[in-house]
Amino acid sequence: MKVVRSSAVAKNSVEMDGAEGVEIRWLISKDDGAENFAMRMFELEPAGHTPLHTHEWEHEVFIVEGKGTFVCDGAEHAFEKEFVIFVPGGREHCFKNTGMGTLRFLCLIPGSAG
Amino acid sequence: MKVVRSSAVAKNSVEMDGAEGVEIRWLISKDDGAENFAMRMFELEPAGHTPLHTHEWEHEVFIVEGKGTFVCDGAEHAFEKEFVIFVPGGREHCFKNTGMGTLRFLCLIPGSAG
Repeated sequence: MKVVRSSAVAKNSVEMDGAEGVEIRWLISKDDGAENFAMRMFELEPAGHTPLHTHEWEHEVFIVEGKGTFVCDGAEHAFEKEFVIFVPGGREHCFKNTGMGTLRFLCLIPGSAG
Repeated sequence: MKVVRSSAVAKNSVEMDGAEGVEIRWLISKDDGAENFAMRMFELEPAGHTPLHTHEWEHEVFIVEGKGTFVCDGAEHAFEKEFVIFVPGGREHCFKNTGMGTLRFLCLIPGSAG
């Protein structure tokens, strides 16, 4: 069992090739006993973006703050606070912060990811 | 693939015994091709609460708006906006809205739930 303010969870820089200005907090993970899926919070600085990449697992995303563009198989989709995005496995995708402030979103992945 | 404003997803009353003033939106589910886990948004009116119950699957929760109390195996835990709660399977639990406004939270469950 875990009850915690999300901002109290450790935040680390994402050092993947193609990532710019991206930080991550692992809010709920296998370290908490969550075997089936994990909840992460991403924080992107203005003009920051995640890498354009593809993998076999899905994402379930909820935008907590800010605005941006979701790129999926070459098409661009604008989003803002409280949008929901489902990215099936196998799609080439990235998230870009197009706003003036921080973009924050939850991104959940299955326990089998990676 | 799905990109949608969460407020545009259909909202339904939760009619379970012990639920009071609870509505749900299934934001991402098997209907979208999400087999591994589902994202729901719960909305509780002031003084509303989910049923005190137990089941074998876990919850991963993120508080979007409002404040409340999480009851788990008889202990009470206060929470507010941007808190994260992990409820392992097998714990007796419920969520209560203790604020003056609507309480909204994401609650994710594995695809095997139910």
